[in-house]
Amino acid sequence: MIDKIDKYFTTRRTVRSFSDRIVDPEMLRTMLEAASHAPTTGNMQLYSVIVTREPERKAALMPAHFSQPAAVNAPVILTFCADFNRFVKWCKVSDAEPGFDNLQSLLSAILDTTIFAQQFVTIAEQAGLGTCYLGTTTYNADKIGEVLALPKRVVPIVSLSVGWPAGDSEVSDRISAEAFIHDEVYKDYTDEAIRAAYAEKEARDDSRAFVAENGKTTLAQVFTDVRYPRSSNEQFSEVFREYIHHQGF
Amino acid sequence: MIDKIDKYFTTRRTVRSFSDRIVDPEMLRTMLEAASHAPTTGNMQLYSVIVTREPERKAALMPAHFSQPAAVNAPVILTFCADFNRFVKWCKVSDAEPGFDNLQSLLSAILDTTIFAQQFVTIAEQAGLGTCYLGTTTYNADKIGEVLALPKRVVPIVSLSVGWPAGDSEVSDRISAEAFIHDEVYKDYTDEAIRAAYAEKEARDDSRAFVAENGKTTLAQVFTDVRYPRSSNEQFSEVFREYIHHQGF
Repeated sequence: MIDKIDKYFTTRRTVRSFSDRIVDPEMLRTMLEAASHAPTTGNMQLYSVIVTREPERKAALMPAHFSQPAAVNAPVILTFCADFNRFVKWCKVSDAEPGFDNLQSLLSAILDTTIFAQQFVTIAEQAGLGTCYLGTTTYNADKIGEVLALPKRVVPIVSLSVGWPAGDSEVSDRISAEAFIHDEVYKDYTDEAIRAAYAEKEARDDSRAFVAENGKTTLAQVFTDVRYPRSSNEQFSEVFREYIHHQGF
Repeated sequence: MIDKIDKYFTTRRTVRSFSDRIVDPEMLRTMLEAASHAPTTGNMQLYSVIVTREPERKAALMPAHFSQPAAVNAPVILTFCADFNRFVKWCKVSDAEPGFDNLQSLLSAILDTTIFAQQFVTIAEQAGLGTCYLGTTTYNADKIGEVLALPKRVVPIVSLSVGWPAGDSEVSDRISAEAFIHDEVYKDYTDEAIRAAYAEKEARDDSRAFVAENGKTTLAQVFTDVRYPRSSNEQFSEVFREYIHHQGF
């Protein structure tokens, strides 16, 4: 049965550097269409995707993604949005009273959007394209919404850089499956189990270099002090909370 | 290029009825491990998955999933959880001060969890297994958390029924890609465009039957009045809001 798992899944890598080769619009459309066959809540398809190619529009988006190289150099940026606008408009032309201005509805749309985006990633990568989740979309959802003219009930959730890879990139390390699979009930971690789960990651050359470059003493400190510090997490939480309220949730 | 899209993606179907055939534990583990190579925020892998097979545990979970047949008949239920417990414990044994008790951190974990779950779905379905997202997990996250002994900083996000398919199921219809792809900026929908986007779905025999069975006059009314009424959406939003606060976000 194990031979039925395509080798792609365990050898895939994120691509952050792209060649000049154009991403054919018709091919992209076909891939997004194929991805839309992914599961979706009650078959409502609570998402939209905005395709950014024009240099001016891309330049306007970049500050919201902190001008990360993986975004700046990509020929195409896809912004996947949780979208209740289309569905609510359908309700309104159908004599139906929508009640979707709440957290559970937004959550359903977030799950639909993420599933759709990930299905696209798999399809695109299997065809040889490179992709990179930008990880900045919910931080600056308000600014992205402005650039992309998002109406009420539409919230950007994830963005992808898409293009043909330039050069090679590496397969990322992952913690052992034993560390995230639980049988029957959640087995909480002892300090020992935690240390074992992350030991291999901490011992990697790139991890050690990362710690040294950032003047830290442990790898975890790079995450808490440099990459995802409390102050930014809290600030961007506030911005996002206000934005989803503004967008009608 | 289009021939590079595996036929699986456009012909996949959700399976709600399962045979007695056992889902091999080692195979399941290998598939979950392969799925963990999916993209994840800052390589933090902010998720756990709980595997439910024992009949008593499954029975205890069922009310939280409204005892839907797709869950009751499945040999395995997988509960995918947003998990900051493991990561925070790592920070604590590493002299690092975590600041992840906020909305953005939870969102990152929700995205990681959903991407991981969807990657598993693709791997499992391509190997011939059937899966079904239960769609009820965030409604009753608190009850599920109790049955699965989830500690603080762990929140169930999606659940999947998994098993070998019994009989055939149908490929679901989808709206046309033109209705969810936007070029450069969001192109808002005229009433005409909305009607066009949903016309085919409304005309389907199963849609018409669905409207009639529920005593409604339009398909949209089945969604607003029967499947996702405002009162349930709001009630479950309140429950979830309290639960994530209780879990430390």
